[in-house]
Amino acid sequence: MDRIIERALKGDPRSIARLITAVESENDRAKEIMQKIYPHTGKAHMIGVTGSPGAGKSTFLDKLISSLMVSGLTVGVIAVDPSSPFTGGAVLGDRLRMQQHSLDPGVFIRSMGTRGSLGGLSRGTYEAALILDACGKDIVLIETVGVGQSEIDIVKIADTVALLLVPGMGDDIQIMKAGIMEIADVFIVNKADRDGSERVVREVNIMLDLQTEKDWRPPVIPTVAESGEGVALAAGALSEHREFLASSDEGRRRKYRRLRLEVEEILKREIAKIAEEAWDSRIGGDVLEDLASRRKDPYTVADELLSKFISR
Amino acid sequence: MDRIIERALKGDPRSIARLITAVESENDRAKEIMQKIYPHTGKAHMIGVTGSPGAGKSTFLDKLISSLMVSGLTVGVIAVDPSSPFTGGAVLGDRLRMQQHSLDPGVFIRSMGTRGSLGGLSRGTYEAALILDACGKDIVLIETVGVGQSEIDIVKIADTVALLLVPGMGDDIQIMKAGIMEIADVFIVNKADRDGSERVVREVNIMLDLQTEKDWRPPVIPTVAESGEGVALAAGALSEHREFLASSDEGRRRKYRRLRLEVEEILKREIAKIAEEAWDSRIGGDVLEDLASRRKDPYTVADELLSKFISR
Repeated sequence: MDRIIERALKGDPRSIARLITAVESENDRAKEIMQKIYPHTGKAHMIGVTGSPGAGKSTFLDKLISSLMVSGLTVGVIAVDPSSPFTGGAVLGDRLRMQQHSLDPGVFIRSMGTRGSLGGLSRGTYEAALILDACGKDIVLIETVGVGQSEIDIVKIADTVALLLVPGMGDDIQIMKAGIMEIADVFIVNKADRDGSERVVREVNIMLDLQTEKDWRPPVIPTVAESGEGVALAAGALSEHREFLASSDEGRRRKYRRLRLEVEEILKREIAKIAEEAWDSRIGGDVLEDLASRRKDPYTVADELLSKFISR
Repeated sequence: MDRIIERALKGDPRSIARLITAVESENDRAKEIMQKIYPHTGKAHMIGVTGSPGAGKSTFLDKLISSLMVSGLTVGVIAVDPSSPFTGGAVLGDRLRMQQHSLDPGVFIRSMGTRGSLGGLSRGTYEAALILDACGKDIVLIETVGVGQSEIDIVKIADTVALLLVPGMGDDIQIMKAGIMEIADVFIVNKADRDGSERVVREVNIMLDLQTEKDWRPPVIPTVAESGEGVALAAGALSEHREFLASSDEGRRRKYRRLRLEVEEILKREIAKIAEEAWDSRIGGDVLEDLASRRKDPYTVADELLSKFISR
């Protein structure tokens, strides 16, 4: 495994893939791998790309990767969106086009499952992103679908979150209501050659102007991913946000919050394991009977269980 | 507080409201209240009602409540859907119509927030449902919006999950893909007077027929909630599912799984609190510096933290 880690750190795609597989399967070595990988992390720009199915995320990503490559940057992609061409959901044409990038030197693409069928990034997603970071990718793109828990989770991983909107889907305002508005650092209004795109740009700008307290005013960038129009501009905006983070209090706060979240996530997982073991080894079927008949309540049972392995 | 609990258990709406408020605010008494309430729970039929915004959940619920009242049943409603008229999201007409039920004897309506802006039922939702159960409601309806984590969470609370679909939204198949298909016990195809409703009914039935392994074959019921058509039939199907649970292995398995989940949820919350305290009291800002500079990795920090309060 040490040899694989060594090769991966030098950028060998097959070794990187093997590390991600090991971590994704949560086997015994996952922790060891991550401990060895971790000192090499913290260099990549992690960018979350999110938006409703149909917003054109795949085409946008395709063009964004090309644009980043032209700038000489290496790119890692993690696709968590079940409708993504990487994960097999999109039409064949899109899929083929996207996967061609896998053949480009310096580009690494990996699709991953969500936690449960309805979203929430798995721990593996985060660790895969860290592996790509450690293994020398300048940019790590994480593609998630724009509904549900993934959106909340993406801010735990990404330095910068890009939200793709699209005119005429009727969901733009709804998405904003639902809270994605607050987590997006860059707004992309894709398919901007369609009717109504100016209205979407205007409405987003109005809503952003109402949030006056923020140090970073998210830009709203019209793109036509299909033709590539505006994509370089979007890449520039993503890069600008990174510079903002590097030089601002907001950036430092975010970094620290994320480090703390990282530890807490690991902690929660470890504790869940311990609780599971405690349940299995120290709580019998009787307790379920007691609960079912209401002879005991779950609060008391939890307390009893807790007292068995927690020392305060 | 004991007097309030006593009155609530007799069905006094104001006392019930006060208990829910106390539990929702997670104050010190929440646990005590729940411990006293719990022995009286386990009698109500908990029904989750979910579906996309625009599926007509509010109108359906309105008519369902009426139908249940006609049968002489008492009803508690917890609305977690941010687009619900209870929580203030729907058009004024809907809202007024729904809230009139609050004036009906035997009906208790409460709106609650979701955990975060994008879903996930809060612990308070579950406890509020238990309070309504303990306080004598025959039926507890929990209304959630059909996207995101709420759908996964609803099965932790509800005995029976009803999914509202609607023709022409284009989201029916997508919802199914996303995994809601598996958690629904009763399918309602609302606005069945619209074009395409027969196609939706047919498609859902085809998909259900492919899942042969289940003991309960979810019925697919067309309704026109606006006129009330089919709602009594839906109420009947919900009740039938309850009878199925009461008399089947599947029902027993579900009950036990839920009891275990209950304990685990409480356990997780308690442990999260302990971890938070441990972080605050035993981990200084230095650790964050060490993490930021990659002198330490989060796995090691989590281990150190864990060893301070866990005895295995």
